[in-house]
Amino acid sequence: MLRYLTAGESHGPALTAIIEGMPAGITLTGDYVNKQLARRQMGYGRGARMRIESDEVRFLSGVRGGLTLGSPITLQIANKDWENWSQVMAPESGARLDERVVTRPRPGHADLAGAIKYGHRDIRNVLERSSARETAARVAVGSVARRLLDELGIKVIGQVVKIGSVEAEVDNSGCEENLTDALAASQLLCSDPAAERRMIVAIDQAREAGDTLGGVFKIKVFGVPAGLGSYVQWDRRLDGRLAAALMSIQAIKGVEIGLGFNAAGLAGSLVQDEIFYEQGRGFFRGSNHAGGLEGGVTNGEVIILNAAMKPIPTLYRPLQSVDLVTKEPLSASIERSDVCAVPAACVIGEAVVAWEIARACREKCGGDTLAELKDNWQKYLLYLRQV
Amino acid sequence: MLRYLTAGESHGPALTAIIEGMPAGITLTGDYVNKQLARRQMGYGRGARMRIESDEVRFLSGVRGGLTLGSPITLQIANKDWENWSQVMAPESGARLDERVVTRPRPGHADLAGAIKYGHRDIRNVLERSSARETAARVAVGSVARRLLDELGIKVIGQVVKIGSVEAEVDNSGCEENLTDALAASQLLCSDPAAERRMIVAIDQAREAGDTLGGVFKIKVFGVPAGLGSYVQWDRRLDGRLAAALMSIQAIKGVEIGLGFNAAGLAGSLVQDEIFYEQGRGFFRGSNHAGGLEGGVTNGEVIILNAAMKPIPTLYRPLQSVDLVTKEPLSASIERSDVCAVPAACVIGEAVVAWEIARACREKCGGDTLAELKDNWQKYLLYLRQV
Amino acid sequence: MLRYLTAGESHGPALTAIIEGMPAGITLTGDYVNKQLARRQMGYGRGARMRIESDEVRFLSGVRGGLTLGSPITLQIANKDWENWSQVMAPESGARLDERVVTRPRPGHADLAGAIKYGHRDIRNVLERSSARETAARVAVGSVARRLLDELGIKVIGQVVKIGSVEAEVDNSGCEENLTDALAASQLLCSDPAAERRMIVAIDQAREAGDTLGGVFKIKVFGVPAGLGSYVQWDRRLDGRLAAALMSIQAIKGVEIGLGFNAAGLAGSLVQDEIFYEQGRGFFRGSNHAGGLEGGVTNGEVIILNAAMKPIPTLYRPLQSVDLVTKEPLSASIERSDVCAVPAACVIGEAVVAWEIARACREKCGGDTLAELKDNWQKYLLYLRQV
Amino acid sequence: MLRYLTAGESHGPALTAIIEGMPAGITLTGDYVNKQLARRQMGYGRGARMRIESDEVRFLSGVRGGLTLGSPITLQIANKDWENWSQVMAPESGARLDERVVTRPRPGHADLAGAIKYGHRDIRNVLERSSARETAARVAVGSVARRLLDELGIKVIGQVVKIGSVEAEVDNSGCEENLTDALAASQLLCSDPAAERRMIVAIDQAREAGDTLGGVFKIKVFGVPAGLGSYVQWDRRLDGRLAAALMSIQAIKGVEIGLGFNAAGLAGSLVQDEIFYEQGRGFFRGSNHAGGLEGGVTNGEVIILNAAMKPIPTLYRPLQSVDLVTKEPLSASIERSDVCAVPAACVIGEAVVAWEIARACREKCGGDTLAELKDNWQKYLLYLRQV
Repeated sequence: MLRYLTAGESHGPALTAIIEGMPAGITLTGDYVNKQLARRQMGYGRGARMRIESDEVRFLSGVRGGLTLGSPITLQIANKDWENWSQVMAPESGARLDERVVTRPRPGHADLAGAIKYGHRDIRNVLERSSARETAARVAVGSVARRLLDELGIKVIGQVVKIGSVEAEVDNSGCEENLTDALAASQLLCSDPAAERRMIVAIDQAREAGDTLGGVFKIKVFGVPAGLGSYVQWDRRLDGRLAAALMSIQAIKGVEIGLGFNAAGLAGSLVQDEIFYEQGRGFFRGSNHAGGLEGGVTNGEVIILNAAMKPIPTLYRPLQSVDLVTKEPLSASIERSDVCAVPAACVIGEAVVAWEIARACREKCGGDTLAELKDNWQKYLLYLRQV
Repeated sequence: MLRYLTAGESHGPALTAIIEGMPAGITLTGDYVNKQLARRQMGYGRGARMRIESDEVRFLSGVRGGLTLGSPITLQIANKDWENWSQVMAPESGARLDERVVTRPRPGHADLAGAIKYGHRDIRNVLERSSARETAARVAVGSVARRLLDELGIKVIGQVVKIGSVEAEVDNSGCEENLTDALAASQLLCSDPAAERRMIVAIDQAREAGDTLGGVFKIKVFGVPAGLGSYVQWDRRLDGRLAAALMSIQAIKGVEIGLGFNAAGLAGSLVQDEIFYEQGRGFFRGSNHAGGLEGGVTNGEVIILNAAMKPIPTLYRPLQSVDLVTKEPLSASIERSDVCAVPAACVIGEAVVAWEIARACREKCGGDTLAELKDNWQKYLLYLRQV
Repeated sequence: MLRYLTAGESHGPALTAIIEGMPAGITLTGDYVNKQLARRQMGYGRGARMRIESDEVRFLSGVRGGLTLGSPITLQIANKDWENWSQVMAPESGARLDERVVTRPRPGHADLAGAIKYGHRDIRNVLERSSARETAARVAVGSVARRLLDELGIKVIGQVVKIGSVEAEVDNSGCEENLTDALAASQLLCSDPAAERRMIVAIDQAREAGDTLGGVFKIKVFGVPAGLGSYVQWDRRLDGRLAAALMSIQAIKGVEIGLGFNAAGLAGSLVQDEIFYEQGRGFFRGSNHAGGLEGGVTNGEVIILNAAMKPIPTLYRPLQSVDLVTKEPLSASIERSDVCAVPAACVIGEAVVAWEIARACREKCGGDTLAELKDNWQKYLLYLRQV
Repeated sequence: MLRYLTAGESHGPALTAIIEGMPAGITLTGDYVNKQLARRQMGYGRGARMRIESDEVRFLSGVRGGLTLGSPITLQIANKDWENWSQVMAPESGARLDERVVTRPRPGHADLAGAIKYGHRDIRNVLERSSARETAARVAVGSVARRLLDELGIKVIGQVVKIGSVEAEVDNSGCEENLTDALAASQLLCSDPAAERRMIVAIDQAREAGDTLGGVFKIKVFGVPAGLGSYVQWDRRLDGRLAAALMSIQAIKGVEIGLGFNAAGLAGSLVQDEIFYEQGRGFFRGSNHAGGLEGGVTNGEVIILNAAMKPIPTLYRPLQSVDLVTKEPLSASIERSDVCAVPAACVIGEAVVAWEIARACREKCGGDTLAELKDNWQKYLLYLRQV
């Protein structure tokens, strides 16, 4: 039973997350999490605000001497700009609520629907929570899950495969090491250097045109054995859970597993992954069109997921909108200045996928300590080779 | 708090579902549900087994005199072929477990991973539950949700937009009546008659070639007001929940909202939906690229979802596999004979979407009786027009 | 993740339950469950209706050849009196809703509050679900949990310790065998024969006086190792979960763990259980005032729970009430004729406790098959002896 | 869907809680919460540590300008003694883990079972989380729920009715005002001044004897209408939920509703609450033995709950225990010095009850803003008077 909640406004004092259900005895350092937070902030095409942030996590509970305790883990990421916002965003009744008021809902954001739903006249009360700033907390949470997966030999690696109309060549040979090396050198988490150069040009052009770009990222999960998730009940299918995790990231509008939408156009004889067996290795496949998931269950192949991100809605070149209060037509206001945030979204995607995989591992093997979980896990891996 | 569980093996005595949390006082008849069950079984390209089924629901609880009671609703769909299976599938220890044994895992199914996970040597113990037969229960459950949505003025309408490589022209004018009429005449739930003819040809060709076809269906939800779902917590975002619901359908490998993957390739200025306002009508949009969801919240426009179905894995032309027990290579066994099940998947998609929308409505408005829920709902709609 | 839902009206066609999350490979027979269902129906002091029922479970899914499959288990208990009710309780709109109408709310039941909440004018629509008939489904569910516990060496044994003002002497030596033998001979699940004789007299007197009696039952759980449940989060504490399970049984108004309310009046030095250690045996206690739970976690001693049942509200000697529709004062109507149902409640208590303990075991050890769960479990028991 | 998680070690930097699902627009100040936190710390019989704490909440999210935003609320209570613990309890790997090590498990605490479960050799890693310090977070959470209840006209009032062997006379006339006045003057949250004097004497005697005292507190909830909770499913019964909430408080070993265990000994004709009706007032009862709950549903009468607290396990006069590491017998170590904490437990009880009632209100009426919730609520209250 792994679960978490996040909280925090973009310009509030801090983002906070509480994680429940991590086993005791896992090595966990702030540096480990901060490295992931830094990855979320990088990427060619980000605006000025990202530099202000330079997020750092603080563990307020659940970790002692570099090890998890089994108790809930509180992750806190201070907003370094808080002193400039402490009066506007103050929780007390003396807050300066008449400053930095937003009444112009931006198309493409939760602004309008959120203000209506929660009865706000100042859209700041919505955008402070609905903004992608919140994903820093999810990346921190995912980092903790990733630490657990490290211990089980599972790696979650994302890569950007498309920005605007520029597509990268993707190596599907399934080799984790190659992929890691290629990504380490990239500004855009893209393993194809030639495509990356064109992506950078496209980003520059969009910036000059006052426009923004979306894209597609791919997440691969290496080292997952067969048998995570389940077909027995709709809400235990791992395909559905992973789709929910990715689609719940801000600006994501599409999710694919394996061939995804391409599978729809192919003949059945070209789509399924034939089954082979070798002594010692056990069962394996000759291809991986299913993206590692059949019937909602992992089949032992690499999990492959794609997610499509729409262009960042905020624009230098504003769109038509209507004032929330006066109902006057207007041009939508601008809050930030990124041109392209697909690499960041990819890091967030890794985090939420890591979380769901960790959750599935816990369900499979129980265990209140890392040692207990690993013992149960190893025994299952041994069984898999002998089945 | 709407929730449900389904249960039942394909060749067991019955499928069963229990629904919890439906308000009292909703008109609900077996005919209403059966009509949806029949829609799931129709569609050009289905094999012989579908005719055996001709599903009928029986209410075993929660409904009296044609009205829901507020208590849990038990839906049961008997397996009409049960007498032929009653000894092979018997729950008692005397079951003839040595008959109709399956040891040949079919690529593309949960067969192999499921057998490993649950320790089965007879794959029948997996396929009986992992098969798409289970979706009859989900369609029944979704029908009950649909009945609630009827009362709130919400319609969920699915259409097939692609089969194999044949794509239909889609009318995105957003008019429910036109769509309903066009679909009523179709064998494939396709609103484009010319495309439908070509789809039928493609299905015939695939059948002759011993192959199968997948496709894409689109779900539109009409009549949803702004403000369902929430941006405040990752697992309350309606985009994520809808993605989970669709991706958890057997053979679905991709889900899109609005422009979906196409959004990734467009400039930001072309993607967002500008905001307008008219007295009496309230806020509205000039376009609907977001598919009715911004920031995980409905924005008052039609919800538009796409889902990609891979071709049915079972094949006349068998694939390479390995015997689960002997580890001998073999050609994968055949269980059924549909060529194309995209229209069925579309009906299932409607059902699971209806469920999630109904759940969001309940969260918004509470209410233990239909009257109470409708009162709260109407008051919210009134507020929306005046906000 | 063990969960279940029950459904069904008292005079509907059947009670149904779906259990989700039981591992595959557990031996499970109808006889095993029926024996528990029969125990629920026995007991001196029951009225005529109990004899009609003589419940039998039918597995409609999840069990094949006497073994669980890992898929959801559907338990169905037909109402043997259904043919007499099939028109009054019919789900179809033609039901004879003007027969057997109840408009007189009985004090002590959910009748009035339920009718108000769900907007019913015929209280039958409430009492059909709120009645203790529903607990037959919970006993069936608990029997499945009990089967799992058998495999792990855990026994849940209930006994009646008080009926009306008659209290039994309770042997707290903690020996399962003695307790089982004493209970086997009892009509009232009471291990003290002298007290039982007085209880029977009290029941007879109450029957003659047209009155009813409540009482107290005690549940002991033998064989539970230290470390189930958790102190780390309020809703993971096993003490809270067990209290919820027991208090949610119809007519239960009090729950105690260990010394319970008596602990409130004692000095602290008399209440805590001192800790000892022996090679090979590990840690143990010199007493068990805590009832096996400290800090929401099992401590390795026998779990001891008490639950207080109020007298059955239905009375031969009727109480003052008011007609739901006319608002005329009246004497409350009578639906059944049990004088005392404490032994039945005790069996139900065993069932719900077995469920919660099984759930805690699953959380501790994971496992999708009984073999996997048992392996993980045995390894934990071994660790406990060596810690 | 109201939910919360708490986190934090006693000597860590802070306790943290995240609340999810509170409507927007509720007035909420730190003072309001702090007043409840102060009540938790008061009470004759508390030791020195309480004075160090003097808890103050800080809102880190979800509240702005004194109003809730609809987004998750982060509550943080700093540990004022943190500077003295920052190296021993540091999350980083450089923490001084060899200082203030605890290897002596205290009987009556989670110490031993927790250390075994989570594999700790230093019991500090358990007691830091299992201690009653955590309840400060629950009181803060409950205060937010209480604020919501204020708006709906619901009051949750606790009182101490027994300390050691001294019992107070309890006024069950059900008048909130009288009760509030009596409690305001009390050092022990006891409405009976004569009993309170004897309780103080008992506490002084226990302190001198190096012993501790437990007791019983009673929670009344005024202003709850009929129809909260539900009888339709076991886990929706409000009696079960309230029992879980109370039993999950540290040191609570018994929970009663209404007559509780006394109901077990009375004849049925004396236990049920007869039903009456008056124009304008609607239905009401002539007595309240059921404590406001019948069939798991509120019946419109005052909810009455009792909880039994065992004496604080930590003792000046130590108990027999065994060293976790060396297995040497020893006398259990002492961590704190309260003699009696029943008034504190009573305040915690109010908090957890307030939470469950607020949750039930939300389920009944939905609503994302206070205005919407109140509108729906008022409409329901109106319906109740007219039903």
